[in-house]
Parts: sequence; C-alpha cells; structure tokens
Amino acid sequence: MRSRFKLFHHAVAYIAVLLVSGLAAAQAADPLPSWNDGKAKQSIVEFVKKATTPGTPDFVPEAERIATFDNDGCLWSEQPMYFQAIFAFDRVKELAPQHPEWKTQEPFASVLRGDLKTALAGGDKSLLEIVMATHAGMTTTEFEAIVEKWLSTARHPKTGRLYTEMVYQPMLELLAYLRANGFKTFIVSGGGIEFMRPWTEAVYGVPPDQVVGSSIKTQFKMTADGPVLVRLPEINFINDKEGKPVGINAHIGMRPVAAFGNSDGDLQMLQWATAGKGARFGLLVHHTDAEREWAYDKQSSVGRLDKALDEAASRGWTVVDMKSDWKVIYPPKTK
Amino acid sequence: MRSRFKLFHHAVAYIAVLLVSGLAAAQAADPLPSWNDGKAKQSIVEFVKKATTPGTPDFVPEAERIATFDNDGCLWSEQPMYFQAIFAFDRVKELAPQHPEWKTQEPFASVLRGDLKTALAGGDKSLLEIVMATHAGMTTTEFEAIVEKWLSTARHPKTGRLYTEMVYQPMLELLAYLRANGFKTFIVSGGGIEFMRPWTEAVYGVPPDQVVGSSIKTQFKMTADGPVLVRLPEINFINDKEGKPVGINAHIGMRPVAAFGNSDGDLQMLQWATAGKGARFGLLVHHTDAEREWAYDKQSSVGRLDKALDEAASRGWTVVDMKSDWKVIYPPKTK
Repeated sequence: MRSRFKLFHHAVAYIAVLLVSGLAAAQAADPLPSWNDGKAKQSIVEFVKKATTPGTPDFVPEAERIATFDNDGCLWSEQPMYFQAIFAFDRVKELAPQHPEWKTQEPFASVLRGDLKTALAGGDKSLLEIVMATHAGMTTTEFEAIVEKWLSTARHPKTGRLYTEMVYQPMLELLAYLRANGFKTFIVSGGGIEFMRPWTEAVYGVPPDQVVGSSIKTQFKMTADGPVLVRLPEINFINDKEGKPVGINAHIGMRPVAAFGNSDGDLQMLQWATAGKGARFGLLVHHTDAEREWAYDKQSSVGRLDKALDEAASRGWTVVDMKSDWKVIYPPKTK
Repeated sequence: MRSRFKLFHHAVAYIAVLLVSGLAAAQAADPLPSWNDGKAKQSIVEFVKKATTPGTPDFVPEAERIATFDNDGCLWSEQPMYFQAIFAFDRVKELAPQHPEWKTQEPFASVLRGDLKTALAGGDKSLLEIVMATHAGMTTTEFEAIVEKWLSTARHPKTGRLYTEMVYQPMLELLAYLRANGFKTFIVSGGGIEFMRPWTEAVYGVPPDQVVGSSIKTQFKMTADGPVLVRLPEINFINDKEGKPVGINAHIGMRPVAAFGNSDGDLQMLQWATAGKGARFGLLVHHTDAEREWAYDKQSSVGRLDKALDEAASRGWTVVDMKSDWKVIYPPKTK
C-alpha cells in the first residue's frame, strides 16, 4: 500500500546523490557527498569509525547501534509552520461542507477565512481542537489514505514542491550512511506517528515500526465488515521534550547511541542518548540559510533552538551550519 | 548489557535442534524438526510457501511480512501462574525488610505467608497493588538489572528449570523459520514490556524494539549523575484482548499477516491479523499435554482458551495439539 512511494523516491534520492557531486570517483569514496568538508562532516565520520571499530572501548555492538532522528526541521523543513499543521488546515477546509457550524465557530471560522494567526490565538487549546476535528473519527486505514492523498497533491506555498520533496538531501545520505554501518535508524518526532508512517519508508528508508511520534488513542471495534481501529479524539502521548526519552524507551527499549535534532524539543533526547557509556553522538541542525531554506533559532515560534544550542557547546554536540555545511538542501523535484 | 544471555542461548537453541532430530540429513531439509508431521506443521509450511512465492495473489512483499507472537503460554509456559506474577511475589519477599507495614497489610501479608490464594482474593486491585509496589519506584536501568538477576537465579517450582529454559523448542524453530523467510517477528504480550525486553533477544532472537507489552508510565528526570527514566506507579497501557490490536498499531504501525497465541487474550489479535487481504495465518497453541507440560483450556484462570478455540474452527486458524504436534516441549537445560 505504501509501495507506490518507495521505488520512485529511492530512485530520486539516488539520482540526487549522483548529481550533486562532481566527480564519479569521489562519489564512490564519499558516503556524504552533499556535505561540505568541515567540522560537522568530520565529526560524523569519526563517530561512525569509532563506533564500528572492534577492540576499542568506543566500539558499539551492532545490536546497540540505535540512531534517533527528529523529523520536523531535522529531516524535512518546518516553515512557515509544521507541515502537519498545514495538513490540518487543509482538512478543515475540506471538511467544512459537513460542518456548517464552523462558519461561526472558532477556531474553525478563522481557518476558513485563511486567518491562521487568529485561529491559533487560543494557543494549544485551539490547535488541539483543530487536530481532533481533522485527525480523529475515522479508521486508521482511512486516515492513512487521507494522508497519502494530501501528500501526493498538496504543495508548499513558497517552494511549490510536494512536502515529501522538502526533505534534506544531506540527511538522506546520513541515514543511509548510518544504516550501511549497521545502525538501526528511528524517527522520534513530536509530529503525529500516523501522519508519518505512510511515507517514511519510501522517503527515508525508515519502516513504520521504527517511527516514534505523538499519538491519539485508538479503539478496536468488530464491524460487519471485519475488525477496525477507530481513531478517538483523545490525546494518547505527546512525544516532545521530556516525552522523547519516554517515547524512545516505550518504543525502542534501548538508549540510542546517536541522536539528531534541531530544536529545544530535542534537548532531552540528546541528553538521554549522549549520557550513556562508550561512543556517543549528538547533532543539531542549525537553520542558517535564509536563501536556500530558512534562518531561525532562538526567537522562532516554530522549531525554536535556544537552550539546546547553548548546551551543544558544553556537551560537545555537533552543530550543523546549514548554510556552510550543506552543498544542497533538497533532492531534485520529482513532479 | 544483554549480551551475556545471547550467545549462550543461541548456542543452546542450536544444539537443541541438533539433538531432537534423529537424522542429520533430515535436519538440513526440515526447518521445524521438533514438530511432528501433521496438519499443524503442514499449515505453517504451506502458509510460508504461499506468502513468499512471487507472482501469486497470496504473495506478501517482505516489508509487510509481520508476524506477532503472544508470550505467556505461546512462547513459554504460564503455569501454575504467569511467571511475571511469581517474579512479583518474589520481589515482595525481597522488599519486605524495607516495608515492615506489609506484615499486616493485605495483599502483602498473605504473599509473605505464602498464601497466594488469599493475596489474590481481591482480584485485579490486589494484583495491581503488588505490581506497583514491586515494578515501580526505580529507574528503567535498575529494573532491567532486577529482572536479569531474578531470571538468572529463580527456578520454576515444578520443573526446577530457569524460567528462560521453559520456552517452547518448537516455537523457537518457528520463529527462526519465519525470520529465515523474511518475516519480522514481534512479541505482543499482555506481560510487562520491560519484564520481557532484557532477555527476548537472547532467548527468542527478538530485539527490544520488536517487543510490545503492557506498561507503566515513566518520567524523564535530570539528576546530578545524568538523565534517568523513573518508573511510576501508574498504568500506561494494558496490552491484552482488544488492547492487542491497539498495541500492534501503536508499536508496529502495520497489520500483521500472521499471529500466534494460545488464549482468549489473543482473540482480537488473531481477528485483526487474519482479516486482511492476501495470505493470512492464525495459530493457537492448545495446552493438551498434562505429562510434559500442562493441560488446560476453557476452565483455566490462567491462559483461558474458550472463545478463541471456538472461533478457530470457523475462521480456519490452526490449532496446535501440544501433545501430538510437538516432539519436545523445552530445549535441554542450560544450567
């Protein structure tokens, strides 16, 4: 069911690798061709070498090579707002004919007028109302189809790309590089787990069971057509900040040896992963490229990077300067 | 940390395979040497052949070959009570010196007197009190060490075996057979997820991230010695009955194509797995061997098999008659 994404995206990612590097010979030797030579790239390669060289105190047995990646702002873009929020607003518009009361009922009325600032003025409560109205009330199978349809048609307002084309080419290479060295790669995101699973294998090579995220509750029901899982309008788990190590423990049951993020929402995940014994690695993507992507950190309401950036220095985490460390941002457009 | 179990147990399982079959030549050809020829074995082999033969409507792509196994009574024994309950009672005895009030406080007083019947007379509430007093209040790392210590020393009152020696040899072969055919094998148990994870890879070849179970809540805390996850005395999720498809969806994110259980607690998991399109397989282990293991079904308070047994006939699920289908029950003793 998810296979239509897969081959296509893998081929595109592969072609992208070929395109961005000049020399065929260099490509064969360089697993990270979209990364400029520099401290960030060097730190990654050195960590992988340490973790995979037997007979040293830093060696990590393959069963323990767990690497966790945030999604929004780490593997794909997150501006001008989290893509799942754009999905939710699009869903409000699509569902509006079935909800005439939304014309006057906030926060829906503002969403329908295109006034997102007012819609979100109510803070978490407003956002929660929008999420529950758009993400619950259907079966898991129906929701998967809704997500797949949106992703195959909706385009980003600034780039005109499909959202799954706004993944970071250097991070795709990093995921593949770690897997080639025996790491199991997991996504650990504040985003909805069922919003990610329909496409993470095709786009990132991460299968559904290696995706950890926020969730609403589901309920098993036997119907005349057989059993279904119904999505309920009730929060199950918020996989953000202190929740990330909790989600990691619940789903993975092992402490990661490497963690990759970009915001304060990833701080505790990096603390948790890098506090273990032996070779450890923490990395933050710093959005510094206003031309090719976006530039934001301590003041941003989306993907704020403040405390974690301060802590990176004292803890020896790698900070990627997107502007200088990455040769390209996105893979070539697919459509 | 879990590696001390691993090599040893793998070697033992392998030797067991060699021992139980008479002919060296037959072993090479038969992936299930501890299974007698019969309907059950035949149905397994036929399903695997169908699911892995390309170009047929029954073919299952490797990414979708998900097989889920209950643990108690399906992969290891569960009599005279769930082994985790024995663990909890042993913990009560060990913790008693720190809790002088337990001498007069039920259900602990009865546990300490060895009167488990009275201890559990309060039903779920009593059991919950015992679980919370014995499974919470420490870090996840500390709990893992407690489980490992217990499993390496505690012995079953009837067999004198370590509990991890009371796993079913035919099911170990089945797990390995499915994995050799591209299946990803998961445990989906009503038992505690953190009670299973320390040993499932060594004993079953199932890594921690492929274990789904019941859980209590945990909390991230930063201490002077670094971050920890503290186990809280609060239920997070009960992975039983209707909870199993919910747990499967939460952890795996795909519907299994094959599900293996032994009790009514597995009914909804088998319904969920076998209702999908294409090749599907459901199997129930029926405990019919009072001599070599235990014989129980519709009347048992532990591992009751009633509704699911009735439904097996109408849904075409395989029912394993332990007495006639299995050549051996357990692997050879390790210690």
